[in-house]
Amino acid sequence: MSDATTLLFANDAFYVAFAAGDLAAMDDLWSRRAPVTCLHPGWTPLFGRPAVLKSWRAILESGSLPKVRCENASAHIMGDVGYVICNETMPEGRLVATNLFHREDGRWRLVVHHAGPTSGPAEAPAAPAPAALQ
Amino acid sequence: MSDATTLLFANDAFYVAFAAGDLAAMDDLWSRRAPVTCLHPGWTPLFGRPAVLKSWRAILESGSLPKVRCENASAHIMGDVGYVICNETMPEGRLVATNLFHREDGRWRLVVHHAGPTSGPAEAPAAPAPAALQ
Repeated sequence: MSDATTLLFANDAFYVAFAAGDLAAMDDLWSRRAPVTCLHPGWTPLFGRPAVLKSWRAILESGSLPKVRCENASAHIMGDVGYVICNETMPEGRLVATNLFHREDGRWRLVVHHAGPTSGPAEAPAAPAPAALQ
Repeated sequence: MSDATTLLFANDAFYVAFAAGDLAAMDDLWSRRAPVTCLHPGWTPLFGRPAVLKSWRAILESGSLPKVRCENASAHIMGDVGYVICNETMPEGRLVATNLFHREDGRWRLVVHHAGPTSGPAEAPAAPAPAALQ
């Protein structure tokens, strides 16, 4: 399986945990080694695992979980760091997210999640101009 | 000079080029090796150097350059990849940005710029809980 494919799987796992309200899976997804930051739409940034996971607990246990679907995801690799650009599609509208991952013991872990407004689908070119950096 | 300091200098250089309308400096800042993406506030993502630099040309040559200042910047390092979270402060209001950099031949180059709305200042804790990954 290519690095891009495993990165997209990790990104999907984030949205599956989000949609399912699965806090244990969400906790497991975030990096334990890299400095993590989460920028929920319109919020101030949250720095470090304790603040980030506290926010996810509040969201996932709120009882009004957004019905979010990940669409138009593209993976971009730089060795052991990779990022995914994707849409977060909900009944209320569409957001765009940058999700940054770090590979730890062969597994992609989330380092930054930044979601916010967008004006259309996040469609990457079929063959991006710059090659992935290995 | 620490990695965090050089990363913050590179981030400042981005905002200096932006404020000065300096397209050559902006072009020089963006990575030539890593797959670049730019998410201007509310836009759809732009993938690859040609699309990203075309957008910056349009913005910098528009004749109505936003008076943007970088504030509350914090640097977060993972080896040869690092990211900065900062506010973009303008007379019209404050945005938050995630700027991802890749170190190439000893110099930080921009890989992702994602800017959007925020509800307050992007103040990182004085001593972030997770250590920088070397």
